[in-house]
Amino acid sequence: MSPGATRQDADGIVTLIAAAGGEAFVSRGVSRTIIGLVGDVTRFATLNLKSMPGVADVVRISTPYKLVSRENHPERSTVRVGGVPIGPGTLTLIAGPCAVETPEQTLEAALMARAAGAGLLRGGAYKPRTSPYAFQGLGEAGLRILADVRAETGLPIVTEVVDAHDVELVASYADMLQVGTRNAQNFGLLQAVGAAGRPVMLKRGMSATIEEWLMAAEYIAQRGNLDIVLCERGIRTFETATRNTLDVSAVPVAQRLSHLPVIVDPSHSGGRRDLVMPLSRAAIAAGADGVIIDVHPHPERALCDGPQALVREDLEELSTVIDTFAPLMNRLPATADLTPVA
Amino acid sequence: MSPGATRQDADGIVTLIAAAGGEAFVSRGVSRTIIGLVGDVTRFATLNLKSMPGVADVVRISTPYKLVSRENHPERSTVRVGGVPIGPGTLTLIAGPCAVETPEQTLEAALMARAAGAGLLRGGAYKPRTSPYAFQGLGEAGLRILADVRAETGLPIVTEVVDAHDVELVASYADMLQVGTRNAQNFGLLQAVGAAGRPVMLKRGMSATIEEWLMAAEYIAQRGNLDIVLCERGIRTFETATRNTLDVSAVPVAQRLSHLPVIVDPSHSGGRRDLVMPLSRAAIAAGADGVIIDVHPHPERALCDGPQALVREDLEELSTVIDTFAPLMNRLPATADLTPVA
Amino acid sequence: MSPGATRQDADGIVTLIAAAGGEAFVSRGVSRTIIGLVGDVTRFATLNLKSMPGVADVVRISTPYKLVSRENHPERSTVRVGGVPIGPGTLTLIAGPCAVETPEQTLEAALMARAAGAGLLRGGAYKPRTSPYAFQGLGEAGLRILADVRAETGLPIVTEVVDAHDVELVASYADMLQVGTRNAQNFGLLQAVGAAGRPVMLKRGMSATIEEWLMAAEYIAQRGNLDIVLCERGIRTFETATRNTLDVSAVPVAQRLSHLPVIVDPSHSGGRRDLVMPLSRAAIAAGADGVIIDVHPHPERALCDGPQALVREDLEELSTVIDTFAPLMNRLPATADLTPVA
Amino acid sequence: MSPGATRQDADGIVTLIAAAGGEAFVSRGVSRTIIGLVGDVTRFATLNLKSMPGVADVVRISTPYKLVSRENHPERSTVRVGGVPIGPGTLTLIAGPCAVETPEQTLEAALMARAAGAGLLRGGAYKPRTSPYAFQGLGEAGLRILADVRAETGLPIVTEVVDAHDVELVASYADMLQVGTRNAQNFGLLQAVGAAGRPVMLKRGMSATIEEWLMAAEYIAQRGNLDIVLCERGIRTFETATRNTLDVSAVPVAQRLSHLPVIVDPSHSGGRRDLVMPLSRAAIAAGADGVIIDVHPHPERALCDGPQALVREDLEELSTVIDTFAPLMNRLPATADLTPVA
Repeated sequence: MSPGATRQDADGIVTLIAAAGGEAFVSRGVSRTIIGLVGDVTRFATLNLKSMPGVADVVRISTPYKLVSRENHPERSTVRVGGVPIGPGTLTLIAGPCAVETPEQTLEAALMARAAGAGLLRGGAYKPRTSPYAFQGLGEAGLRILADVRAETGLPIVTEVVDAHDVELVASYADMLQVGTRNAQNFGLLQAVGAAGRPVMLKRGMSATIEEWLMAAEYIAQRGNLDIVLCERGIRTFETATRNTLDVSAVPVAQRLSHLPVIVDPSHSGGRRDLVMPLSRAAIAAGADGVIIDVHPHPERALCDGPQALVREDLEELSTVIDTFAPLMNRLPATADLTPVA
Repeated sequence: MSPGATRQDADGIVTLIAAAGGEAFVSRGVSRTIIGLVGDVTRFATLNLKSMPGVADVVRISTPYKLVSRENHPERSTVRVGGVPIGPGTLTLIAGPCAVETPEQTLEAALMARAAGAGLLRGGAYKPRTSPYAFQGLGEAGLRILADVRAETGLPIVTEVVDAHDVELVASYADMLQVGTRNAQNFGLLQAVGAAGRPVMLKRGMSATIEEWLMAAEYIAQRGNLDIVLCERGIRTFETATRNTLDVSAVPVAQRLSHLPVIVDPSHSGGRRDLVMPLSRAAIAAGADGVIIDVHPHPERALCDGPQALVREDLEELSTVIDTFAPLMNRLPATADLTPVA
Repeated sequence: MSPGATRQDADGIVTLIAAAGGEAFVSRGVSRTIIGLVGDVTRFATLNLKSMPGVADVVRISTPYKLVSRENHPERSTVRVGGVPIGPGTLTLIAGPCAVETPEQTLEAALMARAAGAGLLRGGAYKPRTSPYAFQGLGEAGLRILADVRAETGLPIVTEVVDAHDVELVASYADMLQVGTRNAQNFGLLQAVGAAGRPVMLKRGMSATIEEWLMAAEYIAQRGNLDIVLCERGIRTFETATRNTLDVSAVPVAQRLSHLPVIVDPSHSGGRRDLVMPLSRAAIAAGADGVIIDVHPHPERALCDGPQALVREDLEELSTVIDTFAPLMNRLPATADLTPVA
Repeated sequence: MSPGATRQDADGIVTLIAAAGGEAFVSRGVSRTIIGLVGDVTRFATLNLKSMPGVADVVRISTPYKLVSRENHPERSTVRVGGVPIGPGTLTLIAGPCAVETPEQTLEAALMARAAGAGLLRGGAYKPRTSPYAFQGLGEAGLRILADVRAETGLPIVTEVVDAHDVELVASYADMLQVGTRNAQNFGLLQAVGAAGRPVMLKRGMSATIEEWLMAAEYIAQRGNLDIVLCERGIRTFETATRNTLDVSAVPVAQRLSHLPVIVDPSHSGGRRDLVMPLSRAAIAAGADGVIIDVHPHPERALCDGPQALVREDLEELSTVIDTFAPLMNRLPATADLTPVA
């Protein structure tokens, strides 16, 4: 309550909360009165307590998400994508081209990814681009290329969907649906992928707090889908030396708040090829359940984000990193070899 | 070029640019070489110059947007919504409830808005909410209420659309389509509203640079729709005393870069009723072409953002502010009175 | 308390708080227990409550500053500098060169400032510069120039001090000491200016929350000096179109929390001459008690921040802005004319 | 140049640059002219090019720091503190209490640190605190405690100095001077520590770009001291789940730009004890040359930052982390054992 609040003001809150089926406990100090509320917080949220006379501020103590919270589900979850696990005990490499350009480029990238121990193939057929003049992806033709490459390599596919009405189509090709950072609060899309019957990789919004990220996951979970993998991909800060600022703390924080697996995208975080390796190591060491990496057989010809794509020789190093760091983190590399698909 | 770049590296760039139909001018210093490129920048963007040997960095000098830029369209534009102008020379008040809840609440809010001199009625039928447990809007039933209230008050309607596939439906009721901050990079939605044949109010993404905001407008413009009004609504910063940080500088900056009108939403910027008036004044004084304000007849019962809604007595003050500040800015209040609708 | 906290955990807190002379009120819900604490918060802060078993989080409700708070001093204060008031009811223009370079340049700038209605002259003799290779100011020679110009123009002087051990020297010349954004948490300097017997202008740290800014003022106030003027000068955000992001909301927010006057520096906020006028108007309209502006007779030769300095013709416009906006804000321009100095 | 710039405008620039001893290369395109400048950039910076007619923007290509840059000093440096190396090939643990409180607490913390393999002891005698009501440190009495504990344990001391005029005193006790985040642009202090003849640990300002951090180091280097260790300690962002956001990418980025060693402070980055271990691992894996950690024998009684201090059992885990991660990074733990002091 504000310093000038009256006893009646406090009584008004107590009555209001009681009417909403909750309980209000009044703590009266010399200069301040604090009221603790317990009960159905969702209902309290509709009461506009901040507008009540005498109220200075309303501070929420409990978490606003439930299904993805670890409070009621203390054990960390494993999400399986085409048989490949993402979760505690394993370390999953997802790799592939930022954008699907041609069958040859996609197959070549997939073979590079598989050779490096990738368990899943990433590749974008629908590309959200800041500029309308940039390459926007091949659409369904790209999905068909991905499906062909999966048939050839055995790697399950992770691919982005950018519009609620494409979800069914994309889900008919993909093993895992990706929701990108620009759609992290596109709630219609979140609900649609929640209903699609496919695991979902949910990238963190570029200015989303960890709580907002988990609320976005709650939108998916509410539709009955708990096969959600959270992906930290860098947040927007004042620093311009990197494309985004990898918030590596978000890995342990999100894992403590939520039972969902958390992976990291070092390629989009740094936006620079020379940062992918140190950021991958940092992510794994922070406890990430996996990393997702851009690779390209010929980055100088890439139609999207070439400067951050790893090439063949980098992938050998990445493979070594995963093999040496995984045991220190008590994890097994979750390769497609371990989990034969197709 | 990086300090260790060779003459061949520079020659490689010159050849590449020439092949792309451009020209490259080499400036050779003692420790550094700089190459200036002129030509079709869109084409250069596909060349992955950053991956070329010897290249340290690529800095874009020209603006990446064209249709919304003032470079080729120096005169500032006026957008008309149901006859009400938004642009230079006028000052437009858009007011109404954050969310349409009932016919009574909407009508009452609209009459309050009109009495205060509003030219347009705002009101949300589709509400993007951070929590899936919060009120999500009435959908088409809300649109019908808005249409009824327009018939009764003569105020044209501004309402948000959150999904590309609702655009046609919403456009059949609304005079102006609003794209919200969470959809500021939902490119499918931007393209859909660009094709809908209705003026669009484009809110700035909460972590969008002014350039990204203009790029989002370019997505709409590319579909043939230049009736776009930019709306600054606060950006995300480290400061927690306000819901968002109103970037009042964005008003003159965007007006200098683009010919599109720029308005301000002081309600969502500050998130507090007591800040709406000072922020409205600041916006107008910075040169905004209008302001959009949350009003509610009974904020304590509002289902959405009650704490920031203005009430009856605030609106009288707002009305006075507009009447006294407009002449100082060489603007005429653009009320529905001046521009009879219906 | 965390969900798994026991009754003993809560009892432990109650006992601890009682031992510290406070009172703890326990609110027990089905899934959560909340404890409201009242008493001497400064003492509670030493208890490390966050480390106690069962504690999930500690949220401070009361403000951590006292002397500068409006809670115990509801009336807004006026600070007088060489007779010129800064506070409610007046609108004070402070103008002058970013850096004192020569007697001629300083005098010329001061005459420009006075002609535009400035009540105080700004000018830096000690310049904190990001680069050690940039002009660092004239030091005491600059102070002497300022004193000479004051004698000639009658304008009291505001000048920056950057080191605690220069405070006495600078105070022997200056009418008001300025603490810059880079020293906003240089606590030794804050204490020294608090003891110097001169009014202080305290710029907001470039990443300081409003609360931290007021805490910095509290350091000054604690030494017995309440003649403090807060100066908003833009905060650091992701936006790069402006040098800093003017947080215009900070004006009304700080004025509601603190009784101290609040002015705005539009020159350093925007960092661009063409933004000074719109940002000055916005600051005044938001309720600022004054503005501080860079002027330079020949900005193209300025040794510091030339691109943001106003020139002669801008100042006429600024003068008109102040004259026309002041009455709307129920303020009188506080010029040196009104308050003859020297 | 801006689109409307004339040929004379460009010629003016060429003449101006020539007069300043540089060369200007003009690249003329259809819609834009770009001028590349080569020569003494420090001199160009005084020319106010941005204010010249026709100039749209000035973009600096070369780095503004020289002595700390890797351009002229490609090999990464090792800084030795009381014989203990910090640099490539070693991994240095610095540990100790946030604040020196008593001889017993400091000794106990130092023994804990040494047992965990620390090479250096940290401990604050001068504490910059946001609130004037918080514990401000013991001052010289604290320095004496640190010296006694060094004599007993053999651990060289790292301690903070907050005022230029304390530098001599602090340097008479300390093996390494620490400049804290709030003083990262206190240029007088930077110059004083540069002249003090002691190695310096320079924390990154909480809103400093990597470039500004290196410029701060350049201030120290300019006084003849290149024994500088950069310390990343988290930056200020919108995320509130952690005290600061550890910018782990800053480690490889700063190491590529500068030859100086880079260490990380996971305690102040996260501000939470449970994040210290994952962030330490992440820092080491990203390539940090060391970590600096808060430890306290009884955090529940700590006078400063108790919630983030590691306790005895944590330190065993930390010790194991260092021993197992160091070899993967091709580093040797740099303990005091390896490098006998005193």
